[in-house]
Amino acid sequence: VGVPRPAAGDDRIPPTVAWHDGRLRLIDQRGLPHRLRFVECVTVDEVCGAIANLTVRGAPALGATAAYGVALALFAACDGGDPIEDAAWHAAAKLMAVRPTAVNLERGARDVAGAAIDAVRAGQSARAAAGVALAEAHRIAADDVTRNRAIGTHGNELVPPGARVLTHCNAGALACVGYGTALGVVRAAAAAGKHPHVWVGETRPVLQGARLTAWELRRLRIPCTVLPDAAAGSLFASREIDLVIVGADRIAANGDVANKIGTYPLAVLAAQHEVPFYVAAPVATIDRMTPTGDGIVVEDRPADEVVRIAGRRIAPRGVTALNRAFDITPAAFVQWIITEHGLVAANHDAVRRVVERD
Amino acid sequence: VGVPRPAAGDDRIPPTVAWHDGRLRLIDQRGLPHRLRFVECVTVDEVCGAIANLTVRGAPALGATAAYGVALALFAACDGGDPIEDAAWHAAAKLMAVRPTAVNLERGARDVAGAAIDAVRAGQSARAAAGVALAEAHRIAADDVTRNRAIGTHGNELVPPGARVLTHCNAGALACVGYGTALGVVRAAAAAGKHPHVWVGETRPVLQGARLTAWELRRLRIPCTVLPDAAAGSLFASREIDLVIVGADRIAANGDVANKIGTYPLAVLAAQHEVPFYVAAPVATIDRMTPTGDGIVVEDRPADEVVRIAGRRIAPRGVTALNRAFDITPAAFVQWIITEHGLVAANHDAVRRVVERD
Repeated sequence: VGVPRPAAGDDRIPPTVAWHDGRLRLIDQRGLPHRLRFVECVTVDEVCGAIANLTVRGAPALGATAAYGVALALFAACDGGDPIEDAAWHAAAKLMAVRPTAVNLERGARDVAGAAIDAVRAGQSARAAAGVALAEAHRIAADDVTRNRAIGTHGNELVPPGARVLTHCNAGALACVGYGTALGVVRAAAAAGKHPHVWVGETRPVLQGARLTAWELRRLRIPCTVLPDAAAGSLFASREIDLVIVGADRIAANGDVANKIGTYPLAVLAAQHEVPFYVAAPVATIDRMTPTGDGIVVEDRPADEVVRIAGRRIAPRGVTALNRAFDITPAAFVQWIITEHGLVAANHDAVRRVVERD
Repeated sequence: VGVPRPAAGDDRIPPTVAWHDGRLRLIDQRGLPHRLRFVECVTVDEVCGAIANLTVRGAPALGATAAYGVALALFAACDGGDPIEDAAWHAAAKLMAVRPTAVNLERGARDVAGAAIDAVRAGQSARAAAGVALAEAHRIAADDVTRNRAIGTHGNELVPPGARVLTHCNAGALACVGYGTALGVVRAAAAAGKHPHVWVGETRPVLQGARLTAWELRRLRIPCTVLPDAAAGSLFASREIDLVIVGADRIAANGDVANKIGTYPLAVLAAQHEVPFYVAAPVATIDRMTPTGDGIVVEDRPADEVVRIAGRRIAPRGVTALNRAFDITPAAFVQWIITEHGLVAANHDAVRRVVERD
């Protein structure tokens, strides 16, 4: 199909999302940090399942996953003789419904579906259109890594030597196709010889910080220390945090940021202690159709993720739990949004300009 | 010995700390919420072990536990023919070293040791002095419940009908001999027909909220919902919290509060959202020898409590964790300290007055 396969991984961290022998191959993030295993998806339903059960997560990774998911659906439609246009929209809608907060997922699915439909309308065969869809998915995946490296370059300017960086959840290679957004900035700073140390919020309930971010940083030989999420307050008070960098699942037109639950308290604490708070995210994370954070749909996930750890119930039977997946950090708490096009102020005009430039 | 045994528990929650057949009987809080079991201690070393491994925890409970621990040491000294005075100070010093942040522990141990030494100096026999020590321990234990009920009565005035109350860790019957401090206020409000609903921060790493507070509230038939600690930010933002009540491990002379790690972020969020933040604690928790929170010794606990859950490692091998046990909430964030003598403003003069009154 003429587009080179993305080479996202390196010898330390393989690509999170890859096309392999006609299948979508994902790192199975549920097994980390103990086992590095892969899951292969052949159908769009398998892709939806892998998204729902957190085999794959992270806004940019979901974008590429959804892109390949639509391509898989189109190859299946060719085999079944189904109309490409129906199959493309049906697959995109199915994928978007699984995790409504991730705008990149929506965009990846739409772009690939749109490319295939354009091809069909231009008179190409169903199989050729599926090939176009796959090429578009490859492009999205390769593009993700290129953009993350640019985020790293821009963000590095904000990192002083010896910086003690607090991050939350996982906005690393595992949240993307490769390299990472927030952790991409840390990688760029480490590569520049700045010797950052990373405070990793464990990120209850699913522990993406303790499991995934710590795993990546260990592989990259970047020193880190895990902490209970609520211990960050004490670290701010003792002046042991120089800056906060997190990723984003969706950024509203005014710069409000939806990210993993627990992000907003860090932003409030950072403001209280005059520590800079940065959001690292590709422009694709910006959703100009949503004016403010109030309009962002925040998913509730199953209570069992909170009340069970490693299969064992921690709360008494009959007691339920809140498992809101994301919170909203108002733009006023964000010093810079670090994008592939440079640092963007978290306000309506600056956000509009960077989206128009993209 | 003439002092009635404390009857702290009721049919729903047995006493956390009790004297039983010449032994100290503790609810084994490590087994909750799954199994209600008891541990019996015969030696002061066993008591120190039970404190260190969190069989018993919570500042007021530690006060009574240490008190009985000194009494046990004195009965052993009688049996061994050792001098009472040495045994009393030795036992008290040993107990105080186990958890240096809990001021009640220090006070319980000192009061009982002092009572025994006074008895010996007044010419009483060693065995009589040990009996005096036990009577003093009984007094401390009974007093704890009386004071907690008074805290509940005063705190109830601050709770509106239908209040949605956020708490952290466990400041309930299990943190005391019985009834509870922060949860005592909730119990008093429930008894007054106000139908409170409690948001329970799970309280990583040891999960005292999810395990202990939820267990108590379930037994008391007070509705509650567990949440990951960092989800509180989202609840404040969506105006689903009417007030915050927590306990305290030590209160400095200026009203700064040491409490379970994760308390300070809740205080900052409460201030940000103009939600009242209350600390419920007996006057014994106030340490006038420590002028401000800066002087409070905060314990670091083993990293394994963070990186292992239910025996299973969650972070990669070779990655370490911060496990600071407490944080300091500056007095400026505390609307009221709810004591057994009424509501006390968190400032130097008001704190001094209530201590002098006690």
